[in-house]
Parts: sequence; C-alpha cells; structure tokens
Amino acid sequence: MEKTSTDALPLTMNSSEKQETVCIFGTGDFGRLLGLRMLQCGYSIVFGSRNPQRSSLLPSGAEVLSYSEAAQKSDIIIVTIHREHYDFLTELTEVLKGKILVDVSNNLKINQYPESNAEHLAQLVPGAHVVKAFNTISAWALQSGALDASRQVFVCGNDSKAKQRVMDIARALGLTPLDKGSLMAANEIENYPLQLFPMWKAPFYLSAVLCVFFFFYCVIREVIYPYVNGKQDSTFRMAISIPNRVFPITALTLLALVYLPGVIAAILQLYRGTKYRRFPDWLDHWMLCRKQLGLIALGFAFLHVLYTLVIPIRYYVRWTSTNRTINQITAKKENPFSTTTAWLNDSFIALGILGFFLFVLLGITSLPSVSNMVNWREFRFVQSKLGYLTLILCTAHTLVYGGKRFLSASVLRWYLPSAYVIALIIPCTLLVIKFILILPCIDKTLTRIRQGWERNPKFSDSALNGKTDI
Amino acid sequence: MEKTSTDALPLTMNSSEKQETVCIFGTGDFGRLLGLRMLQCGYSIVFGSRNPQRSSLLPSGAEVLSYSEAAQKSDIIIVTIHREHYDFLTELTEVLKGKILVDVSNNLKINQYPESNAEHLAQLVPGAHVVKAFNTISAWALQSGALDASRQVFVCGNDSKAKQRVMDIARALGLTPLDKGSLMAANEIENYPLQLFPMWKAPFYLSAVLCVFFFFYCVIREVIYPYVNGKQDSTFRMAISIPNRVFPITALTLLALVYLPGVIAAILQLYRGTKYRRFPDWLDHWMLCRKQLGLIALGFAFLHVLYTLVIPIRYYVRWTSTNRTINQITAKKENPFSTTTAWLNDSFIALGILGFFLFVLLGITSLPSVSNMVNWREFRFVQSKLGYLTLILCTAHTLVYGGKRFLSASVLRWYLPSAYVIALIIPCTLLVIKFILILPCIDKTLTRIRQGWERNPKFSDSALNGKTDI
Amino acid sequence: MEKTSTDALPLTMNSSEKQETVCIFGTGDFGRLLGLRMLQCGYSIVFGSRNPQRSSLLPSGAEVLSYSEAAQKSDIIIVTIHREHYDFLTELTEVLKGKILVDVSNNLKINQYPESNAEHLAQLVPGAHVVKAFNTISAWALQSGALDASRQVFVCGNDSKAKQRVMDIARALGLTPLDKGSLMAANEIENYPLQLFPMWKAPFYLSAVLCVFFFFYCVIREVIYPYVNGKQDSTFRMAISIPNRVFPITALTLLALVYLPGVIAAILQLYRGTKYRRFPDWLDHWMLCRKQLGLIALGFAFLHVLYTLVIPIRYYVRWTSTNRTINQITAKKENPFSTTTAWLNDSFIALGILGFFLFVLLGITSLPSVSNMVNWREFRFVQSKLGYLTLILCTAHTLVYGGKRFLSASVLRWYLPSAYVIALIIPCTLLVIKFILILPCIDKTLTRIRQGWERNPKFSDSALNGKTDI
Repeated sequence: MEKTSTDALPLTMNSSEKQETVCIFGTGDFGRLLGLRMLQCGYSIVFGSRNPQRSSLLPSGAEVLSYSEAAQKSDIIIVTIHREHYDFLTELTEVLKGKILVDVSNNLKINQYPESNAEHLAQLVPGAHVVKAFNTISAWALQSGALDASRQVFVCGNDSKAKQRVMDIARALGLTPLDKGSLMAANEIENYPLQLFPMWKAPFYLSAVLCVFFFFYCVIREVIYPYVNGKQDSTFRMAISIPNRVFPITALTLLALVYLPGVIAAILQLYRGTKYRRFPDWLDHWMLCRKQLGLIALGFAFLHVLYTLVIPIRYYVRWTSTNRTINQITAKKENPFSTTTAWLNDSFIALGILGFFLFVLLGITSLPSVSNMVNWREFRFVQSKLGYLTLILCTAHTLVYGGKRFLSASVLRWYLPSAYVIALIIPCTLLVIKFILILPCIDKTLTRIRQGWERNPKFSDSALNGKTDI
Repeated sequence: MEKTSTDALPLTMNSSEKQETVCIFGTGDFGRLLGLRMLQCGYSIVFGSRNPQRSSLLPSGAEVLSYSEAAQKSDIIIVTIHREHYDFLTELTEVLKGKILVDVSNNLKINQYPESNAEHLAQLVPGAHVVKAFNTISAWALQSGALDASRQVFVCGNDSKAKQRVMDIARALGLTPLDKGSLMAANEIENYPLQLFPMWKAPFYLSAVLCVFFFFYCVIREVIYPYVNGKQDSTFRMAISIPNRVFPITALTLLALVYLPGVIAAILQLYRGTKYRRFPDWLDHWMLCRKQLGLIALGFAFLHVLYTLVIPIRYYVRWTSTNRTINQITAKKENPFSTTTAWLNDSFIALGILGFFLFVLLGITSLPSVSNMVNWREFRFVQSKLGYLTLILCTAHTLVYGGKRFLSASVLRWYLPSAYVIALIIPCTLLVIKFILILPCIDKTLTRIRQGWERNPKFSDSALNGKTDI
Repeated sequence: MEKTSTDALPLTMNSSEKQETVCIFGTGDFGRLLGLRMLQCGYSIVFGSRNPQRSSLLPSGAEVLSYSEAAQKSDIIIVTIHREHYDFLTELTEVLKGKILVDVSNNLKINQYPESNAEHLAQLVPGAHVVKAFNTISAWALQSGALDASRQVFVCGNDSKAKQRVMDIARALGLTPLDKGSLMAANEIENYPLQLFPMWKAPFYLSAVLCVFFFFYCVIREVIYPYVNGKQDSTFRMAISIPNRVFPITALTLLALVYLPGVIAAILQLYRGTKYRRFPDWLDHWMLCRKQLGLIALGFAFLHVLYTLVIPIRYYVRWTSTNRTINQITAKKENPFSTTTAWLNDSFIALGILGFFLFVLLGITSLPSVSNMVNWREFRFVQSKLGYLTLILCTAHTLVYGGKRFLSASVLRWYLPSAYVIALIIPCTLLVIKFILILPCIDKTLTRIRQGWERNPKFSDSALNGKTDI
C-alpha cells in the first residue's frame, strides 16, 4: 500500500514558504532518486555536477549547479560519488569548511580499503563534519517506497549535531536512523550491506555436514547392504525414505546444540566459581547463533513432518500394504490386534506432533515483531522453558520410535546401529546434565554465582556490587 | 547481524570533540553494560562508586569517581542501584538539586512496595527531576545488541524536559522510548517486566478447562463405555483418537467465543439505545483478550490438522482397514460405491481445509508487523469479515461431519451424545444471533446508535456532536 | 500486554509543574479519546465546544470552553469536526492567526471533494498553519492502546515547524509519525484510510479468473466427459479432486508471473540498450505487485498441500484401493513391484515438498519485520535466487508428475490435454528465457547496461556518471 502512495507524492517546489535546502553532489541513479524523495518530503534540492548544463533526467524542481556553487547554497552536502573520485573535493576545502558532508558510498567487497570511505573523506576535507549514512538504502527501496527491504539507516560521525541533522532527514524520509557512534564505526557500516547472512554461515554449514554424513550412513545401511546380500535394488529409497531419516536426525541434533552452550556455560561458571570471567570465544559465538541453529532445526523438522505425512500416498507403501493383505489372505494366517503396538505407535506419533507444535511456537516467538512485544521475562520463559519441553518431547518421540527393537542385535547391519540411535546421543546426554544442574543443591550455587557471588573473590568491589548494584 | 556489528562497535573516548557526559551510579553488571553501550554511542561516561579505587571490569574510556564527584560532572545521573540502598542518596541532596535522576530499578515481585521505586527516589531527593526508564531492558539485550528481546523503553516523569532528554538518550542507543506520562505511571512500568503474559492467562485457563472436560467426556463414551459392556480395551484411543476429538471441539468453541462479545455488545447497545454507557467490566476484559482467544483456537486447529493427517499412518487404522478388506473377501459381500457418502465425506474435508486456511490467514494478519502495515478499514475487514467466514466454514465442517447420524439415538451412549454435538451449541447460536443482527431493520438502528444517535438522549450535546464532531 | 497497561495510565492534571497545553475543537468520540490519551501522556487539554456548559463525558482533568476562549489558551488546535461544519471557523480567523490547526478529518469515499479537507481548511483560515495528521488512527486504537492496528501517523503541511510540533505530539502518544511533505499530500493521506488492499486487487482478480477457468476446464474433462460416454456420475470430484488440480496449477502460474516482469524488463533494456528510459506503466505496476502475486501463489500452494495430504483419508480413495486389492485377489493376477514407478513417484513427491518448503521460506522473509532485518543484498539473494530455485523445483514437480504419460494421446479427452500440461507453458518458457539471459555473453551486456552504460548514449552525462557517481 505504502508504495502506491509514495509514488503519488506531490512535489513541493511550488509550495509557498522556504524549506531547508540540501545539496547533492553527483547525479547518478542513487543521487537522483534520493533527490526526488527529498523533494517529495518538502526539502529543496540543489545538485552539484561536473557539467551542470549537460545533466539530464534530474527530478523537476531541483536546481543543478557546479560543485562549488551548489555547495554554497546549503550546509548539508550529500556526496553520491564513488570513493575513487573523491579527490576533486580537496579543491573545495574552503567552501566545505564547517559544512556537513554525508558519505553514502559503499565498496565492492568487505574491507576493500585500509580505512573506511567516510574516514578517507574526512582526511580529504579536514574542515568538514563528515557523517556516514544512507549506504544501507538501495535505489530500488527509495523508488518503491522503502517498505520492502530494510528501512534502517546506520549513522555515525564525530560531530553530534551534524549526526542529529542527518538523522532528522532520515526520519523525514520515513526511514529509521540508528546512531552507531563515532566515525570509527563507518568501516563496519560500510561492510554491513556486503554481508550475506554472516550469523547463518556456521549453523548452515554445520547442518549441511550433518545431513551429508547421515545420508551416506543410511545409504550404506539401507541401499548398499541389502544390495550386497540379496541383490535387491532399493535405490529409490534415496528419494524419500532416507531423507526422512536424515532430516529428523539433523533437526534433533541441531535442537540439542541450541541448548548445549547454555549448559556448558553453567558448568564453566560452576567450575570457575565466578561469572566475572569471559567465556572462550567459540562459546560466545556459539551462544550468539543459537537462534539460527534453532530455526534451521525447525526447517528440518518441518520437512520431516511433510515427508512423513506423504508416506501413505507413496506407490511403494501402497504396493507393500496391498501385498501384505494378499499374502495374509492366501497364507490364511491370523494377525491379532496388539494393544501394546497400538499404544507405542500412537504415543510415538502424538509425541512427535506435540513436539513439532511447540517447535513452531518457538519459531513464531523468534520473529522480530513478536519478540519485540514480549518483555524479557516472557521471552526467557518461552525460549528456555518451552524450548526444553520441545527438546524433551522430540527426544521421547525418537526413543519411543525405537521402541522394543531399540538395541536388539537384529537391526545391526555390518555392526552399524540404526541412525536414530546415534542421533539420540547428544540430546540424551544434554538432558541428563541439565537434570543434574537443576538439582536444588547445584542450582542454588549457580544462582548465587549469577547474582555476583564469587567463590574466591578477586574483584571484591564487583562482588560487593553484586549485592547492592543492578 | 545486528549483534555481531554492535559487538564490534568502536569506543569514542579518543574521538576529537566533546560529547554529552552522563553519570552512572553503581558499577553492577547493568551499570557497566549500559555505560559501555553509551560510550559506543558517543557519550562520555563517568561512574559513581562507593569505593572508586577498587572498582574493576569497567569499560575502558569511562572515569570512576566517588558518588558526589561523579554527580558534579553531569546533569544526568542514571541510578543503577537496588532500591534497598537508595538511602545514601539523601546525603547528596545538595549536589543532585535540579539534576535528572534516572531510576532503572526493578522489583522482585509485582507491587512489592507501597509506592514505586521511582516515587520513593523522588521523595528521598526532592530537588531532583526523577525519570523512570530503561527498566525493561535486560543486561543481555544491551550486550548482544538489543534486537532479540523488546527494544521498547517506557519512560515517565513529572518534568517534560527531563523526560525528553532521557528519551533522546534511549533513541541514541537504538531503543524506542515510549512516553507513559507522569511519575505516577512508574508503578505500572516497574510491574511490566514482572508480568508473564497477563492477557493470555484467562484464555489459557479457559481452554485448559475445556480440554480437560471434553477429554473425560470422550473417555467415558469411548473407553469406559466399551469396556463396561464388552470388556474391550481401547485405552490406546487416549493417545490420538480422543485428543483429535477434543482439540477441534476446543478450537471451535474458542473461535466462537472470539465473536460472542461483539454480539453481546451489539445487543446491549440495542437494548440501552445508546453507546454512551460503559460496558460491564467482564465484557470489556473479554473484548481485550479476543486476539489471544483466537490465537489459542488456531493452535488447537493446527493440532487437529496434524492429528487428522497422521490417521492413515497409525497401526490401529492400518490394521482395521486390512481386516475389513479380508472380511469383505471371505464374506464375499458386495460393497457398492455410494456417491452420497463420497459427497458428504469430501465436502466435509474440503470445508475443514478451507476453514483452516482462512484461520491461518487470520493468524498471520494478527502478527504485529503485518497489522502495522494495514489501515484500520483493512484490519476490520480481515478480522471481522474473514473471521466470520472462518467460523461459518468450521461450523459447517462439524455439521457435515455429523452428516446423517447427527442425532440418531444409535450414537447415544448412556444417553450421552457425541462430543461434537455439544461443541456445536455455542457457534450455531452465535451465528443465528449474528444473522438476526444484520437484518436490515436491526442493522440500521445499530449503525445509527454507533454514530452517536440515542433513543432517549440524556447527553444531548454528545448526541448533537454525534452528527457534527468526529 | 500494552493494552492493559495503557488502560491503567494515570492522569497527570495533578502532577506538579505546567505542561504544554493543546486545544481540541469538538467533543465527539475521537476528540474525547484523543484528549484522554494526551492527558495521560502529560499534556493539559482544553476542549472547544459549541455549548461548553452542556458538554459531558469529557475526560476528567480537561477544561471545556467556547471555541474562541479555548483557541486563545493554546497555539495548537486539533479540529475534530466533520468537514461539513468547518464554516464557523471563518469567524475565528483573528484568534487562529499564526496558530497550528491540525486537521484529523476523513471522508466517506475516495476523492469525495475536489480539494482535500486540510486544503479546504487552509483556505477558510488563511492565517493559520494547517497540518494534516492523525486521520489514520482509529478511536478504538486510541482507546485500546494503539497496538492492534497501525500506529503510523502520516503528517503533511506547508510549515515545517508546525509539522515538527505535531510529529512530536504523535511520538509522545506512542505513535510513529511519517512526514509526507507539503499540504498537497493531504488528499492522498485522506484517501489512505479508505483504501481496501489496493495492491492486492489486481493479483486477486487474476488468480480468481485463473481458478474459475481451470475449474471448468477440469469439470469438462473429468465430470462431463465420463458422464457423456459412460453415464458415470463423478460430480463428487468437484469437492476435492478437481480443486486439487486447480490450486497447484494456479499457484505455479502465479509464481511464474512473479518472475516474468523481471525477465521482460531485462529484454526491454537489452533491446533499448539503455536503462535510462521508463518502462511502460503496466510493467511498472506489475513489478510493484510481485510480492502480492507471490503470496497468493503461496496460499494456493498451501491449499494444494493440504488437499494432497488428505487423499488417503477420503472415502472414495479408500473404497477404490480396497476394491483394487479384492479384484487383484479374485483375478489372481500378479502385480510385480516396479522400481521405475517407485522412483518417478517418490521423486515427484520429494520435488513438491522441497519446492513448497522453499516457497514457505520466501513467504516468511517477505514478512515486514523479517525483511526489515536483512540488508539489501540478503533480500535480493532470497527473493531472486531462492525464488528461481522454488520455481524450478515446482516446475520439475509438475513435469515428473506427468511422467511418461505426458503427452500420450490416451489422456486427451475431446482433444483436451490434462490441465497441468497447460499450466506448464508459462513457467517453462520463463525458465528457458531466463536461462538464455544468464548466458555469459548476454549477461555481461545486461550488467553493463544496468551500471549505466548505453549503446547509443543520448544522455552523455548520466552515462558518464554511470561510472563516477552512485
């Protein structure tokens, strides 16, 4: 809806009283679109160009002058020029003294230059207040109304007032500015638009590895093995049967890995007897990508559900069931109803459904807009209490699935146990440790440590503050 | 992404020009992390501590002084100290005169003290402008970049300027301040982080009661009854068969309860002939938790769908179908195809699917980020029009499910009708009343009343304004 | 949660020091609720009314005076009166000179009057600074805490300072103001709340047409045809079997239509040899509603999944499978297991599942709150790369479904091919063209064009800037 409306935005050059004038250096796509948008939001725009008379396609209502003339008209200059061509600005040092220079440039790859473009600009034009902003906004977003992609504008600069004015402009354009501190943050801000899901990389590769490993593990047991003894071709199992083992296993393992770091951290704190020592980096990083791990796990669980629900539609399954019936008739053998099997089978399914249901709940609450509406206590409740319940249900689901034939030698093929047995190792150990950790005695110590108590206080003051300060 | 980036935020103590200085009393975890974050956002920080020389772990770039010294350095003092230790502030009354005291404290339980911490602080230091803020932000959120949990900062205080300055700081930290009015709101703000889904309690308990009741109702009909006459063990039905009756029933009932209050309100207004009288409190509260009721109903509907889709996978079902086939063959009896049954069966399923689909749509539009993008008319359209359509489809789904054997005596067990019959009572009555309400004649009166018209005007002016004012 | 809290908001009339005073003309519902909310947020309110002494139901703490008296008390006047009754304001021209008049009015239908209410107001009271705001906020939202429906407040006006002050008020009320430029935007702002999913109309009607067409197409092939030759009644197929053909077909077609405009645009640019010419309007509009097309397609895909998963539960299916078994036995004919069929069948299902899974991912990333968190590069990656992968998987799913009997004459009925064959036309062509476009040679040219290069440069400067400017 937004889009249409912004498309129809009126130009205000003809609206009576004087508005703030902003100068834009460079008449490339981004410059022109930014200018258009600002005109629509009631600013008056003057473009600075190498050869004004030959500039074209500029939004009506905007003035085009030479760089120096344009610069004189306003005390905010937005530089929409590639870093490589900043040099000409040195000649303008006089004109630009004390003015606000907004650097919107991006690079082609992360850390392309030793120092960030904004800092480079600040060195070229020492007199000016350089502010980094708008580099995260795409031309398309400006054109279509900035609702599809992110509206966040990271702003940084050494002069607070300059920063404030740029943030006001951003707000006026319907964007949400976010102060990132001094110009030293420019480098990070310039790298941001070049990132591709940095937090997701590790979890993604991890899950890929897990998938591949378990896939081949199952292929050996269910395709190669029967082929070797029995010459029986069950390659078609690789389409659904085997993925439907691999996905749940991966999901369960990843879900367990979401809660493992928390347990490890607790053990570390118990061991060190203080919370005032940093965790090893790998643990910190692990903790920061727990959300991603969980969501990937949810993805696999979702696939597992679909793969399971289509079972009765599969030709293979229909064929076997029909044949079973036929054999039963021809063989005239009885097949009495076993309540135990019914119980095992039903409860195994029920556990799976409930586990998946809670898992979906977790996923929904991790949506930014939802987690922004809950307070910290509620967020913790959902993510830890519900999370562990989910883990317990899913583990139980797998255990019951194993049922009686859990470790019976009969299922061993080439001494390889069924894949799900391996999948159970991590979750079960995790749950056991967690259970030990919440035993009253241990839990009490842990709570005290987390409130700032120390077994052998090195940092007496912080220990003290643990009691008095928040 | 946010997280990583903020972790890498540069400190600005070495950035050239002077920034606003903020003083933080207390060097506990929260104090330190808040200080670090503010340093990163370009503030210069001075800590006030009981024993400065022994303070440790403080972010580099921050100064540590005694309370009184620190207080003199800035006119904003953030008090990160537990309420129990506020007393020492009385000695600083002189220094703190006219300064802004920010109270960030929380309590351990709701309404722990007669008056809120902030008001208590205001009494201790009469000269200072006390502002309540930041208590909803967790230390972890500050550390990891405040994107996971809520970024909302509720602010209240009696001095508008003081409030404004604190809100500016919050914005600079990338948080979203929300003005809650005078310091009298502090109590409510301090209770907020202690709440655990207050709006969800009633709906949750209600649905729990419904579940338990219908569960036992079904157990009597489907487990105890067959056991008593026939000694037949069908306990295993408690795992899936019975839940799959209980969940849809609960879902349907809750969904009906979402739209019942609206109808009741309409009747009340028709009866009173005016809209200028408050509804009874229970109705107001009911109206406010309609969204929660609906979402819980959606949850049950989701479970119902899963429980239904796994039916053909269940051992019990497979076993019975096989046996049926076998018996049919051995008995050599014909089983002609009945188009009617096919029609009933298919349309019953189709209705269910469509109902669920619309239900999911409703759920999605109630996501904060989605409902923020639609205008009021669109929101009403989805929530009321689509909502009623969903209710109609689901009720029809249940009715057709009953099909012919709807009230035939044969299904009565111990004079107990099938559970779904009971489930139909509320939705059907609701739909009937709603249908009456939208009859032209009645609808006209209702609309006029809602536009401000009154049958026997007590409040002539408001009646008048009903026409002229918005 | 929000709601409850705001309900409990304290009134601040008794809070010590003076606050900003705001005047509200009109004491209708909206006026009263707005006043209440502002009182709660620490403003002091004075109402202007036709007959003050008879005004009732006003929030305690608010003063009620005649229009002129009230106007004198504040320099911001919010006019909550229907446009039809603006005339009396002309008499107040003197009092209102230089004051800020906030127009909150809405109309009953789009473009009801030649000029917008706000502009009309500005003409009536030339001396005042008219600002349009708050018309998108509903009385209910004000009452219940403004979290359910949208909190966006579009603001426009010719005087920047006046606008700024109104936006501050909006922020204080916990709303998010959005500057829309000069008063000329008022018309659009007044139309906004009257819109009903404008962007969704075209995609919705398109999909409706597709559904109807394919529905009747299938009815002819699968209901009428068998009836004509064979007098066999298969009307019941219209409940599930046929919809389950129509939905996937519509979904696939719509999904293809999401990516078609992009390809067309690329071809246009290649043909014109420049990007500096506007696309035809139909293409622009098409591009802007790609998201809606995609989401509707996802809806149909979702329905297709549900319709498919219920297949084994259907009476018709159960009946046929039983009969098949019986016939097989009585006929004593062998039914050997065919690995090929198993392969085809399984991979067809697997492709469908994976396609649907990616489709759901796409849907989730198009949630506003999610797409606000990803940067432009990530957004592009998901929407284009993953999008095409989804399209490929779904097309493959349909192709494999066809399997061997793809164009065998046997499936022709009255020379009509199966519906899915028709459905494949668009996606296949699209994928072929896309494949050609990403051939290195062509791709290189396209990229250069998109970087600003022109085959026969008319606009030398912009061509130049293509290299130097952003």
